[in-house]
Order: sequence, then C-alpha cells, then structure tokens
Amino acid sequence: MKHFVVGVDIGGTNVKLGIVDPSGKMVARSAFSTKDFIRSPRALIDAVCANVLALLAQEGIAKARVAGVGIGLPGLVDVKKGVVRILPNIPGWSEVPLKRVLEKKLGLAVQLENDVNMITLGEWVYGAGKGMNDLICMTLGTGVGAGLILDGRIYRGPGFAAGEIGHVPMTEDRSAICGCGSWGCFERYVGNQSLQEEAARLFDRANISLEEVSSKAVKGEKKALGFWAAVGEKVALGLIGPINILNPRCVIIGGGVARSFALMKPAIEKVIKSRCMKTQAEMVRFVKARLDDSAGIIGAEVLIRHEKR
Amino acid sequence: MKHFVVGVDIGGTNVKLGIVDPSGKMVARSAFSTKDFIRSPRALIDAVCANVLALLAQEGIAKARVAGVGIGLPGLVDVKKGVVRILPNIPGWSEVPLKRVLEKKLGLAVQLENDVNMITLGEWVYGAGKGMNDLICMTLGTGVGAGLILDGRIYRGPGFAAGEIGHVPMTEDRSAICGCGSWGCFERYVGNQSLQEEAARLFDRANISLEEVSSKAVKGEKKALGFWAAVGEKVALGLIGPINILNPRCVIIGGGVARSFALMKPAIEKVIKSRCMKTQAEMVRFVKARLDDSAGIIGAEVLIRHEKR
Repeated sequence: MKHFVVGVDIGGTNVKLGIVDPSGKMVARSAFSTKDFIRSPRALIDAVCANVLALLAQEGIAKARVAGVGIGLPGLVDVKKGVVRILPNIPGWSEVPLKRVLEKKLGLAVQLENDVNMITLGEWVYGAGKGMNDLICMTLGTGVGAGLILDGRIYRGPGFAAGEIGHVPMTEDRSAICGCGSWGCFERYVGNQSLQEEAARLFDRANISLEEVSSKAVKGEKKALGFWAAVGEKVALGLIGPINILNPRCVIIGGGVARSFALMKPAIEKVIKSRCMKTQAEMVRFVKARLDDSAGIIGAEVLIRHEKR
Repeated sequence: MKHFVVGVDIGGTNVKLGIVDPSGKMVARSAFSTKDFIRSPRALIDAVCANVLALLAQEGIAKARVAGVGIGLPGLVDVKKGVVRILPNIPGWSEVPLKRVLEKKLGLAVQLENDVNMITLGEWVYGAGKGMNDLICMTLGTGVGAGLILDGRIYRGPGFAAGEIGHVPMTEDRSAICGCGSWGCFERYVGNQSLQEEAARLFDRANISLEEVSSKAVKGEKKALGFWAAVGEKVALGLIGPINILNPRCVIIGGGVARSFALMKPAIEKVIKSRCMKTQAEMVRFVKARLDDSAGIIGAEVLIRHEKR
C-alpha cells in the first residue's frame, strides 16, 4: 500500500525533507544547506534527489510504499504544468520543468507547490485550521504572504499568484517603497525589517532582536508590551480588507513573528471587531500556526493524497 | 421541458421581474414600485407572487415549463437555508424564510441570492465575464460591492458576506466615517455621494449630476476629463489589494458610474500596471458590465440551472 508521502521544503537557506504518514505525522526528517548547491538548478535538483532517496533508504521504506513527493518552493510555481516559473531568491530558476525532471530521476509521482500554499495545506488539514473550509493562513517574516482555503479548496488564482496579502496598500506614503515596485504595502509595515528598525528605535539599540523584545514583554516590561500591541494593531489594519472581502472563519498566523502571537492577539481582535463588517467580525477567529516549520513538509501529504484537482 | 427561469430583482426602489430562456435571453419583463408594498415583508411577498404569476400568464408559459425562480435581494441572504437574514434598506426583513414561503405560494422551486452575487452570475455566464473562471464583478453606485467568481464557482464565504470590496480601508482618516462603522473605506471615496460632492466642488454647482460631468467629458472638456481620470485612479487604488490577493483574470465594473467606464479605464490600467504585482498586473483586464440592469434577472438563470452546489 502506498502509505507514505515525502515532503521537501526548499528555502533560500535550507532544504528540509520529511516522510509523512497518513495521519499527518512526520516519521523521519533531514535537511541540508541550500547554499552548497545554489550554483545551478541541476546541482540543487541532484541534491534533493540524493537526500530523498537517502532518507527513504535510512527508514527502510521502499518506493512502492510512497504515494508521491510534494515539493514546496519559494516563488511562482505553475502547479498544473509542474513548472517552477521563478524563484526570486535562488538564482537560475526560471521556467524549470521540475516535476518532469524529478519524476524521471526519482521514479516517484511529484507535485510542486508554492511554499506558503504548502504550509497552508498542512495547517488546514493537520494544524490550526482543522475542520474549517474557509481560512487565510498568513506567514509573517521577512516577507508577508498568505495561502487561501476557500470553500474547502486551496485557491491559487489562474496565474498561481493569489494570496499576496503583503502587498495590500496601507498608505500612499511614497517613501515606504516596497520590493514589489509599489509603495505603502502591508509588508513594509509588518515585515521583519520594519519591525526590527522599530524595535531598535524604541529601545535605542541597533542590535536588539525581536526575540528579545518578546522576552521582555513576557516578563511584563511595558515598553515591550506596547511594541507588540502596536504590531498587532498594524497586522489587524492589513487584515481588515482581506477579511471583509473573503469572510473567512479564521486567520492563521505563522512565521517567525508568530512566536509573539499571544502578545499581539488582543490588539488584533480589538481592531477587527471595531473595523470589520458585522458578519465578518463575528465569524473570524485568530489562531497561531501549530505545525511550526514542519507545516511545509506535512502539507505535502495533503497535496499528494487529499487535495482534489 | 422545464425551459424557463424567472428572475426577480428586489431593490429598495423597484422590483424588476423577467423570464429568461436557456440562452440567457430575457423574453419578457415587468416591474413594480417597492414603496407601495414596503409596509411588511408579507405585502412585498404577495406582490412578488402576483407579479410572477401575472408575467407567466401574460406570456402563456405554464408552471410545468419553469425550472425555478431566482430572487436577488439587497442584503444578507443565507443561500443554503433560503433565509433572508437582513435587508438594511427595507424595514422588517429579518430572518425571513423566504424560499419556503415563496415555494409554497408559487408552487415553483425558488433560490435566493444576494443582488450583487446575482449580477455577478449573470455577467459571468452571459455578459462581460464569459469564459472566465476567476473574476471580480464590482458595482459602483451609492454602495460599492462585488461578487467573486473563483475557480469557476461563486464564492460567498461561510457567512454569505464575502465580496465587501467597498469596505477595504484606503486611509486612516477618521473624518471619513463610513456607514459600516469603520472609516477610510473605499466606498467613502468612490461611492456616488463622494463623487457627487467632488463634482459639485469642482464645478462649483451643487446640483451637477455625474451624468452631466460624463457628457462634458465626452465633449472633451478638460475639467470633466480630469474628474473621471481622478475617479479611475481612486477606483484603481481600491483594487490593488483585491487584485494582489485574488489574481483575477478580469474585473468587471458595473453600476451607475460604469456609464463613464471608458473615461476611467486608462487611469485604472495605469495605476494597476505600476502598483500591482507583476503576474497579477499582466493577467488582469478591466471590462465594463454588459447586461446593465438586466444582469440581476439574467443571473437567476445561472443560479437555477448552471451553478453547482
């Protein structure tokens, strides 16, 4: 019986791999550094193959017992054709027919997916979104993105580019230039870089980390508590539009900043309650992502075995 | 053969009715004033029934040839239960089990739908959205709303409240109070009231109509052309977020202000091209609604005969 799924989460820093069983449990995992294989797509593809096969061998799992391999990628992926269109942070990846190449090399069924969508699939079925048909799964980190589950299916958009919640305009401040070419984007206010600059200003120390500001807040330091309440408020301001448009049952918040979710939650709920439309405000719940950095691997199980296409 | 569908478009001013054939053509229509029957839901329901039956009799169409009746309503509708939850502009309508009541009275299958969603269904299948699986159908009028077709299905949200594009925040200007209880909403900048105030200011005449400003622009008057370009720019600013999130193939623009669509279109396209993400900007097209005030009746044909539920 094709019992297992292999998940591969390709990031700009690390490639993480895992074997997932039909209950969504990761039974084995490994990782390697992306940098060592960044010189060409071919080098990275070979490393992915070698590591997938090594992990299966290590666990004594024959290919016949593997339903497929799900690959999460940090960029634009044509899920239907199985082509990586572009990876902004990994050079050389443009229109790579990765599904076909990997299937030939591995002798296993392969599905590609955008990394944030993969996390969304994992959180939806096995994490914070269990049992819900309509949700936004937002990742707060260097970048700010989201995956959308609508009417019980992942919504990717016809160009596989949906969910770009980080690029909802918040202001018309032209000095808040964004990497996307626009300005005033949500990401410019709640992305890690902005939060770190804000923390450095507030605590008058250039090298203060967001983790340290969290620790201070947990200890009850007023200034740190105020910092996270202000972040929560900004996060909520960016969510008013998406929530009014999509009327989701929940917003899952993941990514590095989600470590401070409990410190932000009251401010988020207060803003949404007062600013969103009645039905939307009453229905939506805010929850912390549950699968941490496993979501992008566990999501492969959903992609390969559950999702209707 | 159950050939025909009856569409009923209930508005705050008029109730419009029509008989639609399987090609989406309206073969007969009638209308009556809402005000004459506004004293109670029962009075309005009786008037709807009498007018539906009269129109069928007039056309010599037996009930056996009618597949169903689709009712569009200006408010929150539980489409699954067939209950009108609330109509903000028609008093007394709260939790009315309209589907059940009408089916009993008419002896015909009845489906309820929100009016903007009904327009969206009509434009999608028989109007400006033909052949597209992913679109936003926006109505610009006193209120600003939208219907969403995503992955080839209408997306209503779990509370039937999705599509509230008019309540995406554009600014944090607290003086721009909105009827929804929030402030700075898109509707506050592109709703009819704001546009009329802006026109009155610009032309220094309190009673100037938007139609007149359109006529002036069509004649080439610079000030009027500038007015519509500025409206187009504001419309586009409100669409950046929804387009980045949903990656639609097209945005259909309807409602009274859409009469001036051609005057706004270049400004809309310019802003979206420079401010939206690359894939989204390249894919999206802006089109004028095609079915005018018939969309809300023709949509009933889609609701009753085509839509998978």
